[in-house]
Amino acid sequence: MVLEATAVQAPPLKSRYEEYYNPQLVLDHPEFRILDSDAPELKDKNANVACAYNEKHEVHLIHKPKPKAGPGEAIVHVRSTGICGSDVHFWKHGQIGPTMIVKDETGSGHESAGEIIEIGEDVKNFKVGDRVAIEAGVPCGQADCDPCRTGRYNACQRVVFFSTPPYHGTLTRFHAHPVAWLHKIPDHVSFEEGSVLEPLAVALAGLERAGTKLGDPVVICGAGPIGLVTLLAAHASGCTPIVITDLVASRLEFAKKLVPTVKTVQIQREWKAEETAEKIKAAAGTGIRVALECTGFESSIRTAIYSLLFGGKVFVIGVGPTEQSYPFGYCSANEIDLQFQYRYANQYPKAIRLVAGGLIDLKPLVTHRFPLEKAVEAFHVASDPTQGAIKVQIQD
Amino acid sequence: MVLEATAVQAPPLKSRYEEYYNPQLVLDHPEFRILDSDAPELKDKNANVACAYNEKHEVHLIHKPKPKAGPGEAIVHVRSTGICGSDVHFWKHGQIGPTMIVKDETGSGHESAGEIIEIGEDVKNFKVGDRVAIEAGVPCGQADCDPCRTGRYNACQRVVFFSTPPYHGTLTRFHAHPVAWLHKIPDHVSFEEGSVLEPLAVALAGLERAGTKLGDPVVICGAGPIGLVTLLAAHASGCTPIVITDLVASRLEFAKKLVPTVKTVQIQREWKAEETAEKIKAAAGTGIRVALECTGFESSIRTAIYSLLFGGKVFVIGVGPTEQSYPFGYCSANEIDLQFQYRYANQYPKAIRLVAGGLIDLKPLVTHRFPLEKAVEAFHVASDPTQGAIKVQIQD
Amino acid sequence: MVLEATAVQAPPLKSRYEEYYNPQLVLDHPEFRILDSDAPELKDKNANVACAYNEKHEVHLIHKPKPKAGPGEAIVHVRSTGICGSDVHFWKHGQIGPTMIVKDETGSGHESAGEIIEIGEDVKNFKVGDRVAIEAGVPCGQADCDPCRTGRYNACQRVVFFSTPPYHGTLTRFHAHPVAWLHKIPDHVSFEEGSVLEPLAVALAGLERAGTKLGDPVVICGAGPIGLVTLLAAHASGCTPIVITDLVASRLEFAKKLVPTVKTVQIQREWKAEETAEKIKAAAGTGIRVALECTGFESSIRTAIYSLLFGGKVFVIGVGPTEQSYPFGYCSANEIDLQFQYRYANQYPKAIRLVAGGLIDLKPLVTHRFPLEKAVEAFHVASDPTQGAIKVQIQD
Amino acid sequence: MVLEATAVQAPPLKSRYEEYYNPQLVLDHPEFRILDSDAPELKDKNANVACAYNEKHEVHLIHKPKPKAGPGEAIVHVRSTGICGSDVHFWKHGQIGPTMIVKDETGSGHESAGEIIEIGEDVKNFKVGDRVAIEAGVPCGQADCDPCRTGRYNACQRVVFFSTPPYHGTLTRFHAHPVAWLHKIPDHVSFEEGSVLEPLAVALAGLERAGTKLGDPVVICGAGPIGLVTLLAAHASGCTPIVITDLVASRLEFAKKLVPTVKTVQIQREWKAEETAEKIKAAAGTGIRVALECTGFESSIRTAIYSLLFGGKVFVIGVGPTEQSYPFGYCSANEIDLQFQYRYANQYPKAIRLVAGGLIDLKPLVTHRFPLEKAVEAFHVASDPTQGAIKVQIQD
Repeated sequence: MVLEATAVQAPPLKSRYEEYYNPQLVLDHPEFRILDSDAPELKDKNANVACAYNEKHEVHLIHKPKPKAGPGEAIVHVRSTGICGSDVHFWKHGQIGPTMIVKDETGSGHESAGEIIEIGEDVKNFKVGDRVAIEAGVPCGQADCDPCRTGRYNACQRVVFFSTPPYHGTLTRFHAHPVAWLHKIPDHVSFEEGSVLEPLAVALAGLERAGTKLGDPVVICGAGPIGLVTLLAAHASGCTPIVITDLVASRLEFAKKLVPTVKTVQIQREWKAEETAEKIKAAAGTGIRVALECTGFESSIRTAIYSLLFGGKVFVIGVGPTEQSYPFGYCSANEIDLQFQYRYANQYPKAIRLVAGGLIDLKPLVTHRFPLEKAVEAFHVASDPTQGAIKVQIQD
Repeated sequence: MVLEATAVQAPPLKSRYEEYYNPQLVLDHPEFRILDSDAPELKDKNANVACAYNEKHEVHLIHKPKPKAGPGEAIVHVRSTGICGSDVHFWKHGQIGPTMIVKDETGSGHESAGEIIEIGEDVKNFKVGDRVAIEAGVPCGQADCDPCRTGRYNACQRVVFFSTPPYHGTLTRFHAHPVAWLHKIPDHVSFEEGSVLEPLAVALAGLERAGTKLGDPVVICGAGPIGLVTLLAAHASGCTPIVITDLVASRLEFAKKLVPTVKTVQIQREWKAEETAEKIKAAAGTGIRVALECTGFESSIRTAIYSLLFGGKVFVIGVGPTEQSYPFGYCSANEIDLQFQYRYANQYPKAIRLVAGGLIDLKPLVTHRFPLEKAVEAFHVASDPTQGAIKVQIQD
Repeated sequence: MVLEATAVQAPPLKSRYEEYYNPQLVLDHPEFRILDSDAPELKDKNANVACAYNEKHEVHLIHKPKPKAGPGEAIVHVRSTGICGSDVHFWKHGQIGPTMIVKDETGSGHESAGEIIEIGEDVKNFKVGDRVAIEAGVPCGQADCDPCRTGRYNACQRVVFFSTPPYHGTLTRFHAHPVAWLHKIPDHVSFEEGSVLEPLAVALAGLERAGTKLGDPVVICGAGPIGLVTLLAAHASGCTPIVITDLVASRLEFAKKLVPTVKTVQIQREWKAEETAEKIKAAAGTGIRVALECTGFESSIRTAIYSLLFGGKVFVIGVGPTEQSYPFGYCSANEIDLQFQYRYANQYPKAIRLVAGGLIDLKPLVTHRFPLEKAVEAFHVASDPTQGAIKVQIQD
Repeated sequence: MVLEATAVQAPPLKSRYEEYYNPQLVLDHPEFRILDSDAPELKDKNANVACAYNEKHEVHLIHKPKPKAGPGEAIVHVRSTGICGSDVHFWKHGQIGPTMIVKDETGSGHESAGEIIEIGEDVKNFKVGDRVAIEAGVPCGQADCDPCRTGRYNACQRVVFFSTPPYHGTLTRFHAHPVAWLHKIPDHVSFEEGSVLEPLAVALAGLERAGTKLGDPVVICGAGPIGLVTLLAAHASGCTPIVITDLVASRLEFAKKLVPTVKTVQIQREWKAEETAEKIKAAAGTGIRVALECTGFESSIRTAIYSLLFGGKVFVIGVGPTEQSYPFGYCSANEIDLQFQYRYANQYPKAIRLVAGGLIDLKPLVTHRFPLEKAVEAFHVASDPTQGAIKVQIQD
């Protein structure tokens, strides 16, 4: 509503995030360069050093211009960042799904927490020194975007998700972020825990949509990082009994240390799905109501299906091969629900309450730590199964 | 609680239905026989004539003893019975799923309505002359049966489902049934409609669990009997727009007559699933929230998946091939839910309210009618796609 | 993220709607004036004539400056506006609830539809000539607003709801509106129907949260405009049987014309709640699962409670006296749910699908029509119970 | 189905529990008598001693005949029974609600666990020596009972609920019970814990229907036995933060010992509801999503309402005065849900899983223990607020 006599500026009408965080602005910037392992910038604590992958399946450190905070933004000194399986996958394979393709240098990392060192205009609820977790996906937030308007913003088609190509990630020393997507963490929650809030948000989104309830018998398929954080969340929500499966004994032992009451089933590759399912039910002492599938593998999903009670549900948090088969007849005769999770929405405030309130302890998940200058080394550890890493962190 | 001075009889402790409706009692009965087409019993309106299939893939008329009503039971003179796809399947293939196997003469039919001609002891709310629909599945109803105790009795493992082997069906002149599983129909609802309540119950169970809501854009895959009754129910529940698909033009025309506002998509066998999905969305003018899949075919389920909005659901009412493949990656990236229906629970009272209240008109679905003596002919019509039958009824 | 070498403008950080639609800008504008009944502006079809109430309980026409479309905005020539009970209440009583208080001239009207006559910068999906319904509440839409971010924007504390003090309403010739909150209506849906979409949205929001399902027995308490539009929506969603109650016979007759299968109960003031409840159950032939309470009166809510089955729900769409009593003991022993509705969110697209698809016919609800110049007369008719008005419309 | 040539007995058609557990059979039995405090039966470990209240507001020991197990039944030697507030209420006031009225000697107690000492005919899954918790309500279980058939058996109108007049309770040495309503407890769960499963079942039913979820901020109103067991359950389900309120400081200290992270608010009688609500929100550091109201008092329910976020819920587990008032306007403007619980259904198996799995520790709740012979003394302690009793147990 523009009245001639007035000069109130119109409200905005569209997302400018895609344009605003255009990665090309960084790539074309005169200060951008790829760093050798002995580059002098690595010793400069004011240099905006980041870690990137590219279309040639290389991972290396880069130097980026240091951003300034625009209106509604803060500059975060990123203090801790975890390496996600997807970071490794983009590096090694250059692609996830049909649309997320690494085409140029792409900054990695989206599991980050840090400290605010600068705030932009019009920022009221945040100040320099605040300790924050970064929610790495910034949806358009426009009223004409159905997902954003209806609260399911993980489906926003115009989202800027840092570290998903083409956008640069948060594994960088200085990161500019809209404060509305920063989440304060209390003093007794470390930056390290703040960064593991991100995989926790994935697990919590899964649990919420899976509808697990107090006292539900559940199985968690896979004891990798997502499986383990799902274990912590399922335990905190009162699921019992909880069974966890994996091929690797040491991962199950890790799970047992995290949650001593968990029942473990070490899967043998030669077992049929029905056979493994029987072992899961035997370990639980009951049929399963919800299987939280954290591997994405067909054999594991089939096993999950056969472990369920009539009316049970397989909730797939993991990502797996594009095409899979499933036992239609069995699902049909037993009213099995099959559901899937894509990222998360509205989970960070809850995740922080759970960690701050002592219900979920994320600290044991971090098994390896590297300084920012050694981020490339961190990637190699994270991608090497013989290292037994759960969560590898890069800290600054 | 037995006290010496008293003689109150103990309450029952277990289901006796499996034993009570033991089909062998009929097969071993001296009056049981298979009838030739000119058997004199066919002219005797007091003879308990029924239609049965056997393990040799034959369908024929049989003569059974006429039952008397036990306590809590009524004898129903069955006046109208529809032939279900499963009846034809048992006849032709002798088996559905791994456990339902025709091993001997098995009476067919489970879509029936009729008139009470005799009531047993202790029956209070029913009387001779009552017009009733028969709910063909009689679950055990025991408190130690989780499905029965929790209201999900379609999962009862001890259910007697008439016409599912080994139990004889309701396509018989005189049928003994527990009155608790009979449902009175008002005078203005015909026996014919009363029998079509059974497939309606299937559709209603699907819609209820699918969670379709007023104003939802839906697609119904398949315009056979279940697809069409699902169409009626979806329309009654205010889904809009509704798209229906089929390979056969005449079925889509039939659908259009039932619900003139429905949009139709005639599928061409050479179309890819993604392609058909685009045509469905174009017909709807929007993405789909719930696909009600009534064919059970993999290609149709895949099409349904691709037609959905983010967060949408494919609800499979149809039964199909045991093993199928599905696009895991697409489901995962779009949070597609996949759900299935097995029979129904607690749907008959609602089905009757909907038909009696004028919200659903089942009458046009009945395309062919035969007297009981011609039940075999009815089976041949029902199993012959060139006849264009939707619902074939046997009436008496 | 501001990089020195670039000049991309920062994305917005806060709602500017409150400031942007500041009603004082209009009141202070040199063109603003209160119009006499013979004012020359009333003959000028280019004059932005509106209808307003004030703190002295007056209702009159006013002249406002004609707005221009800002970025993301359109100017709508309002063609049809319905008078809501709240409009009358603000006029007569000056207040609703503790915070919505008429303190100065306040433009009325929030049930409007019209035609776009001008579009602002950056508007892509709308054009001059588009026929639109106006969603009158414009929430802040910011990511730091929990209701807006989670899809429940009717709870936004920074909403600009046109016609709720202090904001001017849509009963004006020319109205500036963000296009994201305009909804296109197809050619076969009239402006009149477009304006009645607003009370329909209220009813739909109620039904959605009430969780009424196909085949549910429901009672609708009150046959005023909201009760009647709720009746249409409940019928479209397959509720059956539907009982409607009112004190006034003519309203029940109106209901009967709208939905001939509805059962009516004319309440007598001397009846006790339990007594009325028995009549409702008798009319339904069953206990009620959901009572849709559209009066807000204590006696009606009590009646609704007593009419329910165990586990039933009273869903209160109406607004009523601040303090009320209820039968706690009865609610407790029968697990009665009591729920309430505040405005609506995400209902317009669905409302349009339902009307455009022929499932809900809003046309019979409009009983009186006035030209914009006679808006004051329209208010008098709408506020006079002896006139039997359901929906009074002002058209231009 | 009765065939002349066969002799299979008909399945049952109605509940016989009401008749079977007819309390008059005990009262009229020659062995029934009221016991003096020095009665010799008190020394006889084979005598079926019980504790009863009557219409004269007396509580005393009685002698009952020792039952034998009928078919499907077991005789339980009751080893531990807790006194519920309702036991005390029946004793002191003779009535709860309009229908539960003490008219004659009525055995008390419904929170019991014990050991099976005899099993009846046809019992397969239980044996002498099994340790069991007793689910005290035995619903009719008939298919024509809507609540029983649909899994909501707490609404069964023909339920035999032991200790609710007229039925005798389980605070008796030897109790006959249908095995389907006995629940085995593992060796590491004590009889004492087994008896506290009953109030836990109440809390779990409340939480389940309240829909509390992992990470929800909740307030528990009232730190009496139900409030405390609700606290344990809410904590086990991951609610956080949890605030608990009470008038009495010692109860809040008790709560703090049970769950050290709980926040407490000691209510002052002179505080207004809005004022107390502010203290609750301050203690939580956030608005509340679900208030679990365990007092049933109007002032507490009002407080709960004002403590909620928009869209929050007050779930009333407690029982209170029949007529109450509530702030309609506030509920309406904030979409507050008000829900109630009546007993429980399908909670025992879950309760046992939670206790056996270590998620809920009920042991600290038992503050006083008495032998069966001192049951009257136990009642006096339980009814005396100065004793600070949480759960008083009678053990044998």
